[in-house]
Order: sequence, then structure tokens, then C-alpha cells
Amino acid sequence: MKEKIRIGICGYGNLGRGVEYAVKQQTDMELVAVFSRRDPASVQTVAPDTPKFSIDEIARFQDNIDVMILCGGSATDLPKQTPMLAAYFNTIDSFDTHARIPEHFDAVDKVAQASEHVSIISVGWDPGLFSINRVLAEAVLPQGSTYTFWGKGLSQGHSDAIRRLEGVKNGVQYTLPIEEAVEKVRRGEQPELSTSEKHQRECFVVLEEGADALIIEQQIKTMPDYFSDYDTTVHFISEEELKENHSSMPHGGMVMRSGVTGEATQQNFEFNLNLGSNPEFTGSVLVAYARAAYKMKLKGDKGAKTVFDVTLNDLSHQSSEELRKNYL
Amino acid sequence: MKEKIRIGICGYGNLGRGVEYAVKQQTDMELVAVFSRRDPASVQTVAPDTPKFSIDEIARFQDNIDVMILCGGSATDLPKQTPMLAAYFNTIDSFDTHARIPEHFDAVDKVAQASEHVSIISVGWDPGLFSINRVLAEAVLPQGSTYTFWGKGLSQGHSDAIRRLEGVKNGVQYTLPIEEAVEKVRRGEQPELSTSEKHQRECFVVLEEGADALIIEQQIKTMPDYFSDYDTTVHFISEEELKENHSSMPHGGMVMRSGVTGEATQQNFEFNLNLGSNPEFTGSVLVAYARAAYKMKLKGDKGAKTVFDVTLNDLSHQSSEELRKNYL
Repeated sequence: MKEKIRIGICGYGNLGRGVEYAVKQQTDMELVAVFSRRDPASVQTVAPDTPKFSIDEIARFQDNIDVMILCGGSATDLPKQTPMLAAYFNTIDSFDTHARIPEHFDAVDKVAQASEHVSIISVGWDPGLFSINRVLAEAVLPQGSTYTFWGKGLSQGHSDAIRRLEGVKNGVQYTLPIEEAVEKVRRGEQPELSTSEKHQRECFVVLEEGADALIIEQQIKTMPDYFSDYDTTVHFISEEELKENHSSMPHGGMVMRSGVTGEATQQNFEFNLNLGSNPEFTGSVLVAYARAAYKMKLKGDKGAKTVFDVTLNDLSHQSSEELRKNYL
Repeated sequence: MKEKIRIGICGYGNLGRGVEYAVKQQTDMELVAVFSRRDPASVQTVAPDTPKFSIDEIARFQDNIDVMILCGGSATDLPKQTPMLAAYFNTIDSFDTHARIPEHFDAVDKVAQASEHVSIISVGWDPGLFSINRVLAEAVLPQGSTYTFWGKGLSQGHSDAIRRLEGVKNGVQYTLPIEEAVEKVRRGEQPELSTSEKHQRECFVVLEEGADALIIEQQIKTMPDYFSDYDTTVHFISEEELKENHSSMPHGGMVMRSGVTGEATQQNFEFNLNLGSNPEFTGSVLVAYARAAYKMKLKGDKGAKTVFDVTLNDLSHQSSEELRKNYL
């Protein structure tokens, strides 16, 4: 029997949990251990018997883990952790602070080149699968416009902004594409659209006792950066209703390219994700790219990589022969 | 200035024409010549000044063309031409006889390994971009079902079958996805669907004078392999109407994967093409992969390849740095 790819998870929140679920679905992988900054005994993994360790012990697993999947945040965790861990492991991260990607790539590359590991950064669906489709669509249709729409999806940042308001007990915010804008793109009009012309925002808010709904609604709708530029709807609901109907973390969206070929032939390209759980899907993408990192390392590749450097062949558990026979 | 990638086109029908249009849109390529089995003087290229030669002269262009794009048919042209031309050039073809792909790959690989060229076979949208999405979706969502829907699109084979009937002067056939089947997949029901349960067929037929519409309709609807298993609609129209409304070659379709993660979370993946012209879009895909073949050859790669072996990095005219900065 072929040996399984040995996976480690560094950081265990919603994303780490999604990765644990995803590894279980892959027949060519096994989860070796979860590493956390918290007391390992306090970490509630999906499988109760998943080995858990302090992140301080991670380096001693160097020879027991083929790929370390980093599940920390982009703000403070990954800029430190990915370069640090690339010294010991092939790594996957979901670094998504757009403006700092080149800098993060260079920092990781320096370490991974020296340690001869493969480190794929900024993996997930956006950045990730959406990025792939933006490049693919533009390579095939150089004359045209590309659009990214997000939603319907729960936005963590906007939900936090609502919850910080005085008088708000709890709340969530969904980003939704504006259907009229989507249809304009599909019709080939190639409109120029700002983010707020493509999306609307819908908030579900639980008030503290005695809080004034009108004032809170006004505060949300006029909040700069987050809501003031958007068509925003605010619904007030009970804590029970929030728990009942708004506890999952759906997301998704689409990448569209409206292009022209020949004299004036309209060509539409569309990639669409409708995700019941954002962290579970993102975890599934990270796990697929862990396989790619493993296969690329076996072939002698090294250094920092992105989804743009990975072939479908390396991403799949099928052999090249099987792929040609069954998927072309 | 960077030197342009020098492209040749072998075979000049609708697809060759699409390739000529597509090369013009790419800033890093130039079309060197078109090769045809016909008398070169009789070939009507898009640009009147495109150099045209007999296919018999093709080998002497060995040092003047970086990538030869083969635009012949899969039945008889490509099985001979691709192995023959891989001796002289990096090549791209759109070989789509599904059952013979492994055999075609081996024949091309043997020549391209020896001549040290890169030959990417079975490029287009299906096989091609659809194949990529089937592999990508399954790698990320191993638990689930993948569906391919075609249409709305003009089917050449089915149109030919109609036109062969006695009493039929002209006609076209469109394949359409059955919307109810698409919705079932989107709802996550993972139904088992045969090709005829996913598609319906719509025919527009011009009768010869004196032909009996009822008999022709019956002959179409009961034609084995082509129509008898399908929900088929037949419209009779005038020759003028056919020319006016049914002269373009639209096509498209979608690849969907309905997957499950975690305990029972529904995740939907969808790739959608809506093409105003099938040959122009296919030509655009071939041209993008010509760039990839060129870049792979420069890096020392060789042999037969498929879309599964190509990175986005090699497909794009942008540098890795630009891609990371602007597309992730």
C-alpha cells in the first residue's frame, strides 16, 4: 500500500476544524497532530483522539509530518508562523492581506529555498480558486473585463463592526451581490462597477434591553468604510432567531469575465461558488494543495509558491494516466 | 523589446479562423503563416496579407515558428498530423475523440520526447477548461458528484444528421440543458442523470419543396442514437429565417460539483461558459496554451502534455510577480 501523506494542523479555530474534516475525506492522507498556542487539553478537535500538542513542540515533528497546514490569521499569526515553519515543513497557508502578499511571499521564499521545502501561500477560494479563474479567463479572453462578486456570505469583519456598537447584543452581516449588476455583466455591457455598486449588505441585529432600534439602524447605515457607501438593510431579531437561523457561515460568490473575440462576438466565462460553510470549504482547498506541495517536493521543487504555480496533476490524487483517461 | 512568440496555423476552417483572430488579440504573439492542404491562394484568411502555404512546405518553417496550432479534425487529421508535426514544432491540438486520447497521447509523446518539443493535446473547452474544472472540483470536494451540462449550443453532428434526411434542405440542432435537472443538482440532491435526462434537443429545419413536415418530424424524433432518447422539438422555418437567426455557432455549458464537507454541509462548485462562437472561443483557448507550450519548452520541458500539466503561470503573459500582486 502507498504511504499516506502525513498532515499537521497549526492553529485550531473554525479553519483548523475545517481542515481536520477535509483530511478525513482524502484517502491518501492522515492527520498526525494538531498544534495550538492554547493548552492542548482544552482544544476540542472533531475526532476526540486527534493528538494535540503545544505549538512549542512543533519542530520535533519535523520527520513525522510531510505538510503543515497553517490555520492562523493573516494579521499577526501567518507573517511570523509561515516563515518560521517553512524551515521544518512543507507548508500551506491562507494568507489574505492582499497588499502584503508580495512581502509575505519573499519572506517565506527565503526560508523555503534554504530548507528545500515547498510552501504554498494564499490558498483558499479568494485568494485561491477565484484567483485561478481570474488568470485563466484573462489568458483566454485578453479583450474583456473581469468582475468579482461576493456573497451571499457572512462577513466576519462587518459582523464584528455591528457587534461593537453600544446597545447591540449580537448580530451578523451578509454581503449579497446586486443581481442587476450581475445581469449587466452577463449581457456583455462591461460596466464599470465599484464594490458598492456590486454588493448590498443585510444585517440581523439583536438589541440589548432598552436600546433604541432607530438609533442603532442609523448608526449602522452611516458607519464609514463598512456601510455608508452601501445599500444596507437592517433587521432586528431575537437572540433565539439569531441562533436558529444565522449560526452557519455560508459564503461564496463568482468570478465573471465578459470578453469579445473575432469581430464582436460575446463570450462569457463564469465561476461560481455557493458554500454552506466558508471555513469548511477553505479547509478543503488547503488540504488539496497540501497534496500538491507534497508531490512538488518529491519532484525536487522548493521555495514559496502560489496557486498559479500548481498543476492540476499535482493537485489530484489520481495518476496522470487516470486523469487523461477519465477527466479530459 | 521582448521577442514575440511566433505562431503557425495548420488547417484553416472555422477553428483556424478563430485562432487567427485570437493571435491578433495577444500582444506577445505574431502569426507567421497559415498552412493548408488546399491551394494556398484559395484560402480566405481574416487578414488578407496573412502568409499562406501548402502543408507540404511546413517542415521548412521549423526555425521560424515557435508553436504550431493544429486546427484539423480529430477523426482523421490530428491522429496523423500531431505526431508528424511534433517532430518539427511545439504543438497544440484540440483532439477530442475521448476514447482514443490515451493512444493519441502516447503517439505524440514518443515523437515529442525525441524531438524535445512540448506538445499539448486535447486543448479547448471540453476537453480543456471543463476538464480542469472537473479535476479541481473533485480534488477540493472528494465527497460529491460532478455533472457536465452542454448548451445552449449548436451541435455539428446532430445538425449533419438532420441534413442527411431526404426532404430536408437545411437545418440546425441546438442542445439545451434541462433546467429542472440543473436545479436538482444545485439543490444538492446529487441525482443520477443520463445524458438524455440532462439535455433536450431543438431542431430548426428547412424543407425541400413538397416534403412532408409530419414525416420529417417523425424521422428526426425517432432517429436512434441522435434523437430517440431525447425530448426533441422540431420547428420548420424558411431558408431566410435560418440564415438570419441560425448562422452563428453559439455553445457553452457548465461543470457542476455538488459536494459535502464536515458533517453534512452542502458546497456547490459551478463553472459556466456562454459562448457566442464555439470556434472563436476554442481558438482563443488554443492560443493561450500555445504560450504555455512556448514557456515550458524554454524551461527545458518536453513531451506530450495536457491541460492538467500546465500552470496558470505558464498560461498567462504576466510575470509571476505581477500575477501575485494583481490577481491573487
